[in-house]
Amino acid sequence: MTDQPGNPGETGADVLCDTLLANDVDVCFANPGTSEMHFVAALDRKPAMRCVLGLFEGVVSGAADGYARMAGKPAATLLHTGPGMANAMANMHNARRANTPMVNVVGDHASYHLPYDAALTSDIDTLARPMSGHVRRIAGVEDVSPATAESVAAAMSAPGTVSTLILPANFAWGAAPQGAPAKAQLRAPTRVDEDRLAAAASALRDGKKTLILMTGTALREAPLEDAHRIAAATGADLLAQQANARLERGGSRVALNRVPYPIDQALEVLKVYERVILVGAKAPVGFFAYPGKPSSLLPEGCEILTLADPSDDLPGALDALAQAVGAKPVPKPQIAAIPDLASGKLTPETIAITVGHHLPDNAIVCDESVTSGRDFFRFTYGAASHDWLQLTGGAIGVGLPLATGAAIACPDRKVVALQADGSGMYTNQALWTMARENLDVCIVIFANRRYAILHGELKGVGAGEAGENARRMLDFDEPSLDWVKIAGGMGVEAARAETAEGFTELFKRAAKTRGPFLIEAMI
Amino acid sequence: MTDQPGNPGETGADVLCDTLLANDVDVCFANPGTSEMHFVAALDRKPAMRCVLGLFEGVVSGAADGYARMAGKPAATLLHTGPGMANAMANMHNARRANTPMVNVVGDHASYHLPYDAALTSDIDTLARPMSGHVRRIAGVEDVSPATAESVAAAMSAPGTVSTLILPANFAWGAAPQGAPAKAQLRAPTRVDEDRLAAAASALRDGKKTLILMTGTALREAPLEDAHRIAAATGADLLAQQANARLERGGSRVALNRVPYPIDQALEVLKVYERVILVGAKAPVGFFAYPGKPSSLLPEGCEILTLADPSDDLPGALDALAQAVGAKPVPKPQIAAIPDLASGKLTPETIAITVGHHLPDNAIVCDESVTSGRDFFRFTYGAASHDWLQLTGGAIGVGLPLATGAAIACPDRKVVALQADGSGMYTNQALWTMARENLDVCIVIFANRRYAILHGELKGVGAGEAGENARRMLDFDEPSLDWVKIAGGMGVEAARAETAEGFTELFKRAAKTRGPFLIEAMI
Repeated sequence: MTDQPGNPGETGADVLCDTLLANDVDVCFANPGTSEMHFVAALDRKPAMRCVLGLFEGVVSGAADGYARMAGKPAATLLHTGPGMANAMANMHNARRANTPMVNVVGDHASYHLPYDAALTSDIDTLARPMSGHVRRIAGVEDVSPATAESVAAAMSAPGTVSTLILPANFAWGAAPQGAPAKAQLRAPTRVDEDRLAAAASALRDGKKTLILMTGTALREAPLEDAHRIAAATGADLLAQQANARLERGGSRVALNRVPYPIDQALEVLKVYERVILVGAKAPVGFFAYPGKPSSLLPEGCEILTLADPSDDLPGALDALAQAVGAKPVPKPQIAAIPDLASGKLTPETIAITVGHHLPDNAIVCDESVTSGRDFFRFTYGAASHDWLQLTGGAIGVGLPLATGAAIACPDRKVVALQADGSGMYTNQALWTMARENLDVCIVIFANRRYAILHGELKGVGAGEAGENARRMLDFDEPSLDWVKIAGGMGVEAARAETAEGFTELFKRAAKTRGPFLIEAMI
Repeated sequence: MTDQPGNPGETGADVLCDTLLANDVDVCFANPGTSEMHFVAALDRKPAMRCVLGLFEGVVSGAADGYARMAGKPAATLLHTGPGMANAMANMHNARRANTPMVNVVGDHASYHLPYDAALTSDIDTLARPMSGHVRRIAGVEDVSPATAESVAAAMSAPGTVSTLILPANFAWGAAPQGAPAKAQLRAPTRVDEDRLAAAASALRDGKKTLILMTGTALREAPLEDAHRIAAATGADLLAQQANARLERGGSRVALNRVPYPIDQALEVLKVYERVILVGAKAPVGFFAYPGKPSSLLPEGCEILTLADPSDDLPGALDALAQAVGAKPVPKPQIAAIPDLASGKLTPETIAITVGHHLPDNAIVCDESVTSGRDFFRFTYGAASHDWLQLTGGAIGVGLPLATGAAIACPDRKVVALQADGSGMYTNQALWTMARENLDVCIVIFANRRYAILHGELKGVGAGEAGENARRMLDFDEPSLDWVKIAGGMGVEAARAETAEGFTELFKRAAKTRGPFLIEAMI
């Protein structure tokens, strides 16, 4: 029983901080409680650890996701017992689907207190597993450093995952053993398998209609160039999977489309292929099941070849494939010009055109626009170069947190959050963190005052049109949300756009001004 | 494979609705997604089911908790797959600790779609277990009605629990078999055990210093009268446990204190007892472990007798005990008058005095005031009769949802939500539901702009005073939240109180006016 605290600077919590820092984890998104107070106290002794407060745990985990997608390394989160972690779990789910490295530190009761079943006690281990790739409960003060290093290693090993580390309070406050912090033993991305490489190269020569389907680090500028010349040399097509953690696009980069979300559109796009070659991607399946429609989106008989698994070196795989098929550098096709700026009615399309014209160079777009943003890609191929971050796991409420984390990771880049109003409400508390940290985020709220996606899905699953009772589950127009007030209530400057030109004016202003700014786009 | 939908009115979703209604579950708090669209469509055919939309699932589960505490029967919730349920789980945890009956309907992918591991797929069954007393996955269309009845039975059987029913989409849309909806087989509260009754009665005669510690339905007006006369006849003391789902108090009711939250106060109160008799309550333990302090709050050697378990008939047990000890009805002690209304500085104490004076008769107080409300009881013993609902599981963010649900259950009673600002932010979306449903709730926000409890806990666990880094994890004063704007953004009228008399004026106004009204009390 460790019920006496160590001296400041020598507690398990200090060792945990030191081990994170020794492994280059130096940002912690947090919403602590009593069981994490020693970790919080340790922060005063660890100025190298940047701790960012979120006023709800969904903000915390979503921000850690956005941070890691842009920083290429994990943030820690600090969460309070089972319920605090539960609040973080929807965005842990999204992060898991994005293969995002993340180290959740979840405080629990002191180990000897657990049998008393105090009110906040819950089975954290069981709870953590469905949304974590790795779960570890710290077994004692001497285990703090090795367990932390193991968690970091699990999080960062290719392709990356969500790692959950449970810290009983007495091992946080207990006197820590001396010694250097443990180092994480990472598993690096695997080099592409030679047989798979040969099979893919050979297949690309046989004239079958082939799709190369990519995700993960295959979607960065250089591997996209490789993919482009493979396509030019072999006649294969290229697509990103439907949802991707991060896609480099705009400027002079390869213009890449993605598998559409609506099942009929996806089936239409994919029906021509006789073969799909997977580069880190999964064979496409329906986001949901729909009566009378298939679960697999590939046509019957379509051959599936895997060039590289998510844990493989995807850029290396594409580079090797380009060499194997003798692909030469080729010029990129001309990208269609962005249509002229519109005036009058504000629509998702006129917003997309404005963003296409005025997106600051090297911006980061965090896209949780859901229905409103489905058509954004074609208006922004020709925009300045940028990163595009998507909702990867379908759990809404990631957008504002994602933007928060991306802005912490990249303080010199403008972040643009394209945010549906329904999903934005889930984690609206992120606005406060943006204000506190003075993050350079322009938030565009698509204010259609409904779960627009669900009106479509209601038809899609064969349930018809919404009547009065159903409509009250899909629309939130009574009363209307006022995002300018909500943002103001959390310290974020905001304004409303009612017309296309009004939106353009506000977006240009936001693009040029540092700090958080919210535009409520009335569509 | 059930991939063809039934006709409207004959789907599994219709049967689920019908079975809920046949078992008197006629309110559903919901935030649906695609997998629940057939349930939503069925609502148009089931006007008897009142469906209430929450803009975040924590609102949904917390409202179901508040509803059931006041209605004495469960509400259903409608949640979208694993992440939607995860968002509901913190308040499911609180409900589980309150022994609240609740039936969660969690939509999942069509059963045949699950092996494809689409983005929103997660292990809902595992996820549900830690925060549910009962978990059931519907096995087919023909299983919808029996599984639903089983879930309702599990939820409602004494003492009540959280029941989670997983509904694969194809069993919601599949053609349903004919037949009457299944009826839930409830397990009624058990009659008090005769041996326990005799042991308690005998113990109460031996002169040892005894505490009768109660919770659950023991805290209603009539059993409290019984407890009071037992105390008067035997010299035993009475206390409610630290957190309770519902306590009837005020007016001419027995004035009952509860075990204090701060461990030193709790130890001080409990140290005199040689024996504790439990009536539905658990032997008191520390809310957290604190270095050098015990987990059990009872003095060493204190005898623990259980008169009644939570699943027993607690009012019956107290009635039987009163008879066994020959306790006669006795007048209640005079309650100290509420101090005069204050003016000047606004403090938790002056707010408590105002509430004590002006609480409308038969009000429902939902208390998530955390530190600010610790001293509220002594100022409100003399208030008009009311119910007092507490945070039972320590997972913050229950207050506004609880008030929402209580107001739906009791449309003719004023609900007063005493809400700390930090916890209020967790589920601020509940304000919108209050506005949409025009619920008669007066919300008092204790705006101290910090997790005040954590400043105390930091010291309590021996971690000292907060330095600059630690303070930024505990305080959210930069920027300040503006609750008047946040409420306005969600359609709730609001005003700020800066002085005691300003608060009194606003509270009196809210007490007399129907509909949601928020007072930001600057303390």
